[in-house]
Amino acid sequence: MIETDILIIGAGPTGLFAVFEAGLLKLRCHIIDALPNIGGQLTQLYPKKPIFDIPGYPTVQAEELVNNLYEQIKQFEPGFTLNEIAQTIDKQEDGTFIVTTDNGTKHHANAVAIAAGLGSFEPRKPPIDTLSKYEEKGVEYFIREPEKFKGKKVLIAGGGDSALDWSIFLADVAAEVTLVHRRNEFRGALDSVEKVQELKNQGKIKLITPAEVIGLEGKDKLEKLIIEKEGSKLEKEVDYFIPLFGLTPKLGPIANWGLEIEKNAIKVNNALDYQTNIEGIYAIGDINIYPGKLKLILCGFHEATLMCQSIYNRINPDKKYVLKYTTVGGVQGFDGTVKEAKKAVVKSIE
Amino acid sequence: MIETDILIIGAGPTGLFAVFEAGLLKLRCHIIDALPNIGGQLTQLYPKKPIFDIPGYPTVQAEELVNNLYEQIKQFEPGFTLNEIAQTIDKQEDGTFIVTTDNGTKHHANAVAIAAGLGSFEPRKPPIDTLSKYEEKGVEYFIREPEKFKGKKVLIAGGGDSALDWSIFLADVAAEVTLVHRRNEFRGALDSVEKVQELKNQGKIKLITPAEVIGLEGKDKLEKLIIEKEGSKLEKEVDYFIPLFGLTPKLGPIANWGLEIEKNAIKVNNALDYQTNIEGIYAIGDINIYPGKLKLILCGFHEATLMCQSIYNRINPDKKYVLKYTTVGGVQGFDGTVKEAKKAVVKSIE
Repeated sequence: MIETDILIIGAGPTGLFAVFEAGLLKLRCHIIDALPNIGGQLTQLYPKKPIFDIPGYPTVQAEELVNNLYEQIKQFEPGFTLNEIAQTIDKQEDGTFIVTTDNGTKHHANAVAIAAGLGSFEPRKPPIDTLSKYEEKGVEYFIREPEKFKGKKVLIAGGGDSALDWSIFLADVAAEVTLVHRRNEFRGALDSVEKVQELKNQGKIKLITPAEVIGLEGKDKLEKLIIEKEGSKLEKEVDYFIPLFGLTPKLGPIANWGLEIEKNAIKVNNALDYQTNIEGIYAIGDINIYPGKLKLILCGFHEATLMCQSIYNRINPDKKYVLKYTTVGGVQGFDGTVKEAKKAVVKSIE
Repeated sequence: MIETDILIIGAGPTGLFAVFEAGLLKLRCHIIDALPNIGGQLTQLYPKKPIFDIPGYPTVQAEELVNNLYEQIKQFEPGFTLNEIAQTIDKQEDGTFIVTTDNGTKHHANAVAIAAGLGSFEPRKPPIDTLSKYEEKGVEYFIREPEKFKGKKVLIAGGGDSALDWSIFLADVAAEVTLVHRRNEFRGALDSVEKVQELKNQGKIKLITPAEVIGLEGKDKLEKLIIEKEGSKLEKEVDYFIPLFGLTPKLGPIANWGLEIEKNAIKVNNALDYQTNIEGIYAIGDINIYPGKLKLILCGFHEATLMCQSIYNRINPDKKYVLKYTTVGGVQGFDGTVKEAKKAVVKSIE
C-alpha cells in the first residue's frame, strides 16, 4: 500500500504544480497516470508546440514547460504510479481514501485530487479483429522502452507526427523500420516529413503507401502482418506492430465514483476550494466544471493552489496556516535542499 | 480623454497579464499606476529577489518576471498613465466609466479592473517640517529621470537597498553624491554594500554616519541641508535631497468609490468573475478578498483571465465567445504581429 497525503490523479501541468503547493505546506503527494510519462496532453499531444498564454512566458514549448514544472517540484519527491489507470476508490471510516489501479496497485491518502485533464488518454486502435490477441505479444501503442526494439523488425502505421517521429527514432535502433500509411501524404512538422524522406532515400526506413495493415498472424506472439496495398495483399514478417493513430480521452472509471458529472466534467465548488460533492475529493484543471470555467493551464495552477490550502486545513483542522511568501521564506525541499533569496547583510561602511 | 475598453488600475503582474488575456479577446487596455514604472511590488520592493512559486519557473527574479510579462503583452499595445493616482470614478448613464487621476487625466472605459495590489505605494517621508515646502523644488522620493541629476549635488538619506543602489548609480551621473544614514551599518545585498564601500574609498561617494537630515533651507528651491551628526550640526549645500525610507501602501482614493471593503481589500464575487458590488468594476490580485483568498501572483493571473471573459460578455452581450487555444490559434497582436505554432505540412514522401 502506497501511503501519501494527497493522491493526485493525472500528471499533467495542473497535477504536477499541485505537488509544489502541497510541498510548501509540508504535504506529500503521489501521482497516478494512465500514460507511461508525465506531462499529460503537453507530452502526448503537442510536445514540440509553443504555448503563448502561460503567464510570464512570451512563448514556451510544451515539453519545456513540463520539464520546468518537474524541476520546480522534484525537491518535494512526488511518487509516481505511471502506466496504470485509477480504477476504484473506497472511502474509509476515518475519511481517508484507498484508490486501486487497473493493475491492482493500492494507494492510501488523506485527500484525492483529480487532475485528469480530458480523462485518461487511450490509444485509438485500428479495427482489426485479431489485434487484441497480440497486445503485449508484439502489438504496442506507446514506445515505452526503446531498447526492446533493438535488432527487431518493427512496423509502424500512421501518418501524423507520432508515426513520423518514432519511425525516425527507431531507424537508428531497430533492425528494420517499415512505415505504413493509407495515403501517400503525411501530415506533420516539415522537419519530420523531410527527415523521413531522407531516411527512406538512404534505405533506413521502408515505406508502404497507400496501404493498410488488415491482419496479424503468429503462434504465441506476433510474427507476420497482412497488408493491403492498392487492392493486392502483401505479407511482412515483423517482431512488432505499432499503430500510432492518436489518442482519445476517456473519463473512464472515475465516471463511476459517485461524483457529480456535467458535460463530461466534474462539478466543483469554485466559490471555495474546488472540492467535489464528495468531501475530500477535489477536481482541478480541465477535468472540472463551474460557472465561467476556462480550460486553461493557468487556471489549473490557481485551482491546485487553493485546493492545497483546503487540504491542509482538512488534515490540520487545529492549525492556522499563515501564508509565507517563497521570496521571504524560501522553499525547503523534502530532500533536504533549500532554495532561498540571498539574505541582506548588515554591515558598516568604514 | 483617453478611450479604452478596460481601464486597469495598477501595473503589477496581475494588471499586466490582464492586458494579454484582454488582447486575445480583442479588447484594448490602458493602465494607470501611481509609480513611475511598471511592475508594482516586484519592481519597487524586491526587483533582484528570486520568486519560487511562479508556475513553470523553478526560480525567476522579480524584475525578470516583469520584463517577461511586458514582452508577452506588448503586441497588445497597452496605454499607460504612470506617476498618477486614480482619484475619482464616475459611472455614466450608458454604464461606462470615467476615471480621473490626481493630475486631472481623464480615462473613459467600458470596464474598470482594480489590480492595485496593496494599494498605491507612497514614500515614507522623514518627519521634517519644511520637507513638503521643497517637494518638486529639490526634494525627490523616486528617481524618475536620472539625467536631471547630471552635474548636480545630490544627498541621499537611507540605509537600505534603495539608498545603496541609487547612490552607486548616481555616483557616475551627479557631480557629488552624499549618503546620510542614522547608523554606521547598512542593510542590503552584500554586493551593494561592498560597492558603496569601494566608491567611498575612491572618493566618489561621501558618507555621513551616524547622522540625520533635520532641516532644509533655500529661497525658491532647495539650497542647503542641515544635518545632525553625533550631537553637532553640519550644513551641506545640495541641489537635490532624496530620502529613501521605503514605501507604504495606501488603499487611497479607491476606498471612497463605494466598493465593499473588508480588511482593507475589495470584496468580489469569486464564484463567477471577480466583479465588485458595482457592475463593471472588477478587482483582481492582492487587492481583492473572498473566501479562501491567497495573495499570490499566480492567483491574480487566473482572476485576470476570468475577469476578461466576463468583460468580453459585458461588451459583447450577443456574441458567444468560443475559447481558442493559443497553441492552435496563435496570438494576433494589435501591432500587426502574429505569433503562432509552425503549421503541420501535408506532403507526400516519394
